[in-house]
Amino acid sequence: MKKADVVIIGGSAAGPVAGISCRRRYPEKGVVLIRKEEQVLVPCGIPYIFGTVGTPEKNLIPDALLDKNGIELVKGEAVDIDREKKSVSLAGGDAVSYEKLILATGSLPVVLPIPGLDKENAFTVEKDVAYLRHVLDVINGARDIVVIGGGFIGVEFADECKKNRNCNVTIVEILPHCLQLALDEEFCAEAENVLTERGIKLLVNKRVEAVLGDNKVSGVRLSGGEELKADVVIVGVGATPNTELAKKAGFQIGPTRAIQVDRYMQTITDADVFACGDCAEKFSFFSGRVSRLMLASIACTEARIAGVNLFNKRYATPGAIGVFSTVIGERAFGCAGLTEVMAKREGFDVVIGESTAADRHPGSIPGAAATKVKLVFSRDDGLLLGGGVSGGTGVGELVNVISACIQSHMTAYDIVLFQMGTQPCLTASPIAYQLVNAAELAVKAMR
Amino acid sequence: MKKADVVIIGGSAAGPVAGISCRRRYPEKGVVLIRKEEQVLVPCGIPYIFGTVGTPEKNLIPDALLDKNGIELVKGEAVDIDREKKSVSLAGGDAVSYEKLILATGSLPVVLPIPGLDKENAFTVEKDVAYLRHVLDVINGARDIVVIGGGFIGVEFADECKKNRNCNVTIVEILPHCLQLALDEEFCAEAENVLTERGIKLLVNKRVEAVLGDNKVSGVRLSGGEELKADVVIVGVGATPNTELAKKAGFQIGPTRAIQVDRYMQTITDADVFACGDCAEKFSFFSGRVSRLMLASIACTEARIAGVNLFNKRYATPGAIGVFSTVIGERAFGCAGLTEVMAKREGFDVVIGESTAADRHPGSIPGAAATKVKLVFSRDDGLLLGGGVSGGTGVGELVNVISACIQSHMTAYDIVLFQMGTQPCLTASPIAYQLVNAAELAVKAMR
Repeated sequence: MKKADVVIIGGSAAGPVAGISCRRRYPEKGVVLIRKEEQVLVPCGIPYIFGTVGTPEKNLIPDALLDKNGIELVKGEAVDIDREKKSVSLAGGDAVSYEKLILATGSLPVVLPIPGLDKENAFTVEKDVAYLRHVLDVINGARDIVVIGGGFIGVEFADECKKNRNCNVTIVEILPHCLQLALDEEFCAEAENVLTERGIKLLVNKRVEAVLGDNKVSGVRLSGGEELKADVVIVGVGATPNTELAKKAGFQIGPTRAIQVDRYMQTITDADVFACGDCAEKFSFFSGRVSRLMLASIACTEARIAGVNLFNKRYATPGAIGVFSTVIGERAFGCAGLTEVMAKREGFDVVIGESTAADRHPGSIPGAAATKVKLVFSRDDGLLLGGGVSGGTGVGELVNVISACIQSHMTAYDIVLFQMGTQPCLTASPIAYQLVNAAELAVKAMR
Repeated sequence: MKKADVVIIGGSAAGPVAGISCRRRYPEKGVVLIRKEEQVLVPCGIPYIFGTVGTPEKNLIPDALLDKNGIELVKGEAVDIDREKKSVSLAGGDAVSYEKLILATGSLPVVLPIPGLDKENAFTVEKDVAYLRHVLDVINGARDIVVIGGGFIGVEFADECKKNRNCNVTIVEILPHCLQLALDEEFCAEAENVLTERGIKLLVNKRVEAVLGDNKVSGVRLSGGEELKADVVIVGVGATPNTELAKKAGFQIGPTRAIQVDRYMQTITDADVFACGDCAEKFSFFSGRVSRLMLASIACTEARIAGVNLFNKRYATPGAIGVFSTVIGERAFGCAGLTEVMAKREGFDVVIGESTAADRHPGSIPGAAATKVKLVFSRDDGLLLGGGVSGGTGVGELVNVISACIQSHMTAYDIVLFQMGTQPCLTASPIAYQLVNAAELAVKAMR
């Protein structure tokens, strides 16, 4: 039997990061990473295979990342964990023993109970190169594409499918708005306008009741009876923790059906086993209650915690903040922490500060985009709870500025004094810098 | 005599912001802003008049900003302050009385003692529309442009002058590197490479000893005797506080020749008078010692403090961090806080963490730029002292993420757990996110 100090199961975002962090902290420890995939996809990049990037092969996490960090790769499917013997069995009969084990088995796409989803050309978003290569071929020949689900994945898929293709793309969303679970309504409405301008059809408040067709997809039937033509159906409605292996090995599963861990990412079942990423139970930075957030970024943070804590505890997670962004066409949207709706639902008396300005100064600089920042504060103490942003590509890091403010428990008063750097071709002006103005307006509203 | 609750002298960045913050905090107070300029330029946008933006008229701070915030504009030159009578005299004989006064008189370009700088077509960077219109006309007809000074202003000027023009542009810098007072050497070298690739000639370790020509500029003579042809000379070597009015009124001037203020931006001379921006004395966030930083962003933060504190103190500045960015061609550079060189000079035992990765993921996303983050930590406690960045346009907000971490006294350990949001078209991958990897490598180096 092969022996390793540390065994990691899972090769997507969390697995390699846990390995790297472990190797940085404990260079004397040997790390073996077991994964079943021949090649690993960049998970968030999957929608971009269908437009901007063009092929699954251009959307891979290179194995060089493992080599470079001295992590040994074992390709194979882990089928069993023997916690007594501290070993992982692989399909085919091999096994690897461990001193410490990290479960980074990720998630599986949610499968909806819609009749007909087993027909040819109805797809979920599976993290598999050959599968996605096939989906791409089918989409390249498609006339009518229906995307079920208007969350980030669904919206990004729809936008990419429309790029450089002469096809009809329709999003069917069960809620009143696209992106509604991530953004406040005004941002959803703006995103919907951009989608519509780009020729994507939106059907909200609608449920797909059946996928139609003989062997192949020919259409979908919606709640209310309306039928839509479709030669491809893509389901992008989220993911569910992949915990089959963990359950089989007796690990306690939490309320979101993920592996139960503590703040150190240590499983509560076995002190020698850690879990991180989509397969691990999470809690909210704000309330401490369980959180259903599943993001590659959260997975990587948890993986860093797990990797370092293996032999000597150092890091505890404060809980997931949830920091997102996306782009539709040229317009970016993002959010860090709680939206106004979420904060109110949590019971906060909120104060909102909003500010819109060009993300270049003067606004006559080519490429300037009106950028809106909406901050959500707790009225009592002014604590920042979250922020939503729409604008140009700077939104990606602007939500990270907001995230930094949340993580360090800044109040509106602190953010008024935020020392930003500004530059004509890179940011809003120091006069109009939206984060600071939004905070100042919130302070005014708190008085 | 005109009466106002609050009088502000100065119409560039700090003046209007102080007025807006005052009006937001004290809506019952009337604010009069006195400025001598007919129109006010976006100060940081001035280099862009000569290329990207194209005219001074497209680089204005609109007066609508004042109207919209209920600030009365008085155009005229403040020539005297009577602190006994609490009034400001204007050229021409009018006067305005105040309850509280804010000095936001800004700075003047440094004039070098180089013989010949009084010749026709030798210019400093004056914040005046007609003057800059004239400079633009001259540059449009120029063949050989010499820029004295390779700091941010000089570099931006040179890069803009080269855009869409068939002319020779040379930067003469007295130090061994361009941008050396703002960035560590490796970033300076990278910036110099980009400048050179763009056809800009760099002469470092060189001093201009004389500007040559009869009435008009025809060249410059360098230390060592070398002569360069030039039909335009632009001096961009920084600014000096504009304190003539304050001195005349007896305000105490500090060691950097700026108006002496306390943490509330209140002048130490007169409790009813505040000062902010380039004309006000500053101290460092890190050491508490005087700081010569002069940035529109710092001016605006100080203005917000001054405006709110006028009648009721609320905010104290923790000192200037210094957050910069710039772009040369398509490549952006930035820094927040102390560089490695500065930190060592301050006496810190520093630990460096560096990480480079594409600012998109996968790296095959069009427009992806390799982005480097270098973080500087104090070895003892891991406190973040500063960070330098080079990359694409995301650098503008990425230095603000670093600034947020500095402001909230984060350590390398905190930043390892930084909860960033990532998105294929907007940021680096969560695996490679440079800020976090740089922090993790610094932690490794601290052990």
